[in-house]
Amino acid sequence: MQVTLLNYTPDPERTVAAAARLSTSKTSAAQLREKMSPEQVNRLLDHVISSGHLSTLEHVSFTFAIDGISRAASHQLVRHRLASYTQQSQRYVSFKSFAELSYITPSTIAARGFKGKFDEMVRSIHDLYRQMIEAGVPAEDARFILPNAIETKLVMTMNARELIHVCSLRLCQRAQWEIQALFAKVKEEVAKVAPRIAAEFEPKCYRMGYCDERESCGLFPTREGVGAKGRELSPKL
Amino acid sequence: MQVTLLNYTPDPERTVAAAARLSTSKTSAAQLREKMSPEQVNRLLDHVISSGHLSTLEHVSFTFAIDGISRAASHQLVRHRLASYTQQSQRYVSFKSFAELSYITPSTIAARGFKGKFDEMVRSIHDLYRQMIEAGVPAEDARFILPNAIETKLVMTMNARELIHVCSLRLCQRAQWEIQALFAKVKEEVAKVAPRIAAEFEPKCYRMGYCDERESCGLFPTREGVGAKGRELSPKL
Amino acid sequence: MQVTLLNYTPDPERTVAAAARLSTSKTSAAQLREKMSPEQVNRLLDHVISSGHLSTLEHVSFTFAIDGISRAASHQLVRHRLASYTQQSQRYVSFKSFAELSYITPSTIAARGFKGKFDEMVRSIHDLYRQMIEAGVPAEDARFILPNAIETKLVMTMNARELIHVCSLRLCQRAQWEIQALFAKVKEEVAKVAPRIAAEFEPKCYRMGYCDERESCGLFPTREGVGAKGRELSPKL
Amino acid sequence: MQVTLLNYTPDPERTVAAAARLSTSKTSAAQLREKMSPEQVNRLLDHVISSGHLSTLEHVSFTFAIDGISRAASHQLVRHRLASYTQQSQRYVSFKSFAELSYITPSTIAARGFKGKFDEMVRSIHDLYRQMIEAGVPAEDARFILPNAIETKLVMTMNARELIHVCSLRLCQRAQWEIQALFAKVKEEVAKVAPRIAAEFEPKCYRMGYCDERESCGLFPTREGVGAKGRELSPKL
Repeated sequence: MQVTLLNYTPDPERTVAAAARLSTSKTSAAQLREKMSPEQVNRLLDHVISSGHLSTLEHVSFTFAIDGISRAASHQLVRHRLASYTQQSQRYVSFKSFAELSYITPSTIAARGFKGKFDEMVRSIHDLYRQMIEAGVPAEDARFILPNAIETKLVMTMNARELIHVCSLRLCQRAQWEIQALFAKVKEEVAKVAPRIAAEFEPKCYRMGYCDERESCGLFPTREGVGAKGRELSPKL
Repeated sequence: MQVTLLNYTPDPERTVAAAARLSTSKTSAAQLREKMSPEQVNRLLDHVISSGHLSTLEHVSFTFAIDGISRAASHQLVRHRLASYTQQSQRYVSFKSFAELSYITPSTIAARGFKGKFDEMVRSIHDLYRQMIEAGVPAEDARFILPNAIETKLVMTMNARELIHVCSLRLCQRAQWEIQALFAKVKEEVAKVAPRIAAEFEPKCYRMGYCDERESCGLFPTREGVGAKGRELSPKL
Repeated sequence: MQVTLLNYTPDPERTVAAAARLSTSKTSAAQLREKMSPEQVNRLLDHVISSGHLSTLEHVSFTFAIDGISRAASHQLVRHRLASYTQQSQRYVSFKSFAELSYITPSTIAARGFKGKFDEMVRSIHDLYRQMIEAGVPAEDARFILPNAIETKLVMTMNARELIHVCSLRLCQRAQWEIQALFAKVKEEVAKVAPRIAAEFEPKCYRMGYCDERESCGLFPTREGVGAKGRELSPKL
Repeated sequence: MQVTLLNYTPDPERTVAAAARLSTSKTSAAQLREKMSPEQVNRLLDHVISSGHLSTLEHVSFTFAIDGISRAASHQLVRHRLASYTQQSQRYVSFKSFAELSYITPSTIAARGFKGKFDEMVRSIHDLYRQMIEAGVPAEDARFILPNAIETKLVMTMNARELIHVCSLRLCQRAQWEIQALFAKVKEEVAKVAPRIAAEFEPKCYRMGYCDERESCGLFPTREGVGAKGRELSPKL
């Protein structure tokens, strides 16, 4: 899997800070952006994040080239709707030579001794796929035999607010391992250009102080484990 | 494939009409809804649709149980982001017996004489899948060998405006045949309870008067074919 | 202010439960919906909510007629983007007689002794508005003199997930009083037809166990006040 | 009114082209972006736009500082939901001195001889506003007397696809004059950095070849005026 930061809103942290400052200011955001000191930018970002008023983080976007994730993972990925995707099409791109057909083998498959059978099966599948293509079956139909393991490529654009949200779900140890690895790389890439924002890309439990999954991975106790929480502590509306 | 209208906003056409009337009225939508005659409802719906001011159509939603489409089709379907989906998970549901594993065979595969090989291959794939599951490979990893042809189930909710938009794309002859069939059934289901709205579920060319795909299916000429169009006819801004 | 539940997805709690059950089931959502007992419905709803996997709540929507909120409040309201609105237009509806022009007077204005001056000023404003309309100024321009206090009417549709989110912000004591009152009424209306869902309409602090506003209203201590929280407790990624 | 392009995705046209090329390619978007010639970029953009497959245009966003539009216009503006806004708050910013309170006077008001009365009325309104603030009425309540004409400031981010859509509506002669002027400036700003994209910012009639408003401004005939259209020409589904 390869994740490349293709593009992003330049000077993202200053942009967020200027927008945040605008809401309680009489000055144009254009001027605010110019005259804020780096310290003010940092202080405003801290405030934006700690207050949970995250909408100003939507003004900066990050665009990634994602290469080499399985169609199993891409099907999950595109369920996040506040984002833009362009995906390599299996309807219009066909893979006549086996060499062109990359695929992902989960480590548990190798660990249980199925690597050989798995590879062999993918090769047989490709062989039938190729025969069908050559016999005139359209690529969009021949691909019905292709497995979830086949690699795909995407371009994905998300704004910083949505990246924080998606990372809170997908950096969780309970997320599918491939999508977890994807967002770990997304975090690395963003950290190079917007470290303060990337620092907020973390599993939800870090923020909540407990785990709301059925079973905890061990990092945090479950909700019951942390004892009385908000809802139980307090008067109802 | 089976498409069942699970649920929908009751009295959808009257609801749209009441909202449409509100924007130029001094009366509450609650009263407007009560006192409009069926003729007024129809007239307002005609106006909403012919004027292209479609936002009032968002006030009514339709929820479908979709059973028996391929994962190839569902991956395409969920790319429509102004909708809500719940999908059967291949991470949490495993298919130990072959009888449980339904799949779709495109007609071109049978037509080219590959039905036997296709079925046989799916059976071999399932055999390896089952072995891996039994050896302790998690379902979320074993499924990497499962083909795009495997059936899935979803619950999908879309509002009427988005249904008109999606149908304009997916009822086109150039759309993948399975997703075309899906939205033909969606149209049938909605026609039973909101015929005026369902009448607007049609391919984009019906509305434009020309085809904007690379090649026309024959129903309408391409853009070039219809001769002078708006953009060429007229002064630029 | 009057909030009327105009319409909603019938049997909302059973619909959510059927969708939630589907994701780990081999049965169609259409059948699941039929055969679940009321206890199963309740148990599934509890699970959906406590796990924070709220997407199935999007399958049910609620449509409200909202009458008599100020344009100050409606401007805030429509900032929530995952919703559909139709609003009475000040461009197309003009108010020639003062009797037609309803407006909201905040209680603090009366409390500080400005009720008389406020009413008088609105009357003077209307007088100028009427003169301008009569002299041929278009309604869309004459309304520039109309104050934020003028009442407006809307139809609003939101799904249950978004209602939970918006209520978490707008039922907070720090929200503008009018929008707070609006969502208190929304909660009352939904409680009549979907009590289990409406029970989740509560300010964010109830769920978090602390207040993340600058200053607490007193119900919960601020983040610092509750001592060690998740982020500080734990190893960083 | 002042519209400043605060920020945007750099090299926007190459980014869109790389994404568009990806969908039918075996190469990573990261490489595609590097190796495409300017001619290829242009050709791909032409194809994206003429085919109506606009989703790749979502990968580039533009962020504007908007200063000096009326609250009447901003209320309309924020109805476009596929965008991000940060707005100067009348709840937290108060205007004690009249000099701080900018406002918009529509030209028709001056044209009909009401400029003097309008200015005088705004001054009286501000006088009451200031008295209320000084007497301890919170800014969020005192502003109920402030008129729609009062200026506001925003930061707005929209992607290129949504800008094309919004301009198709708001550059129409029938749109409110202020929001029309706003998007004319948006177009000017984008034209400086992405001229091929900005060329698509035009009223809907330019694309359709007819006007679908109640009455045409004269640029194009109404739907009926252009004679036989798609829907009438052709067989129904």
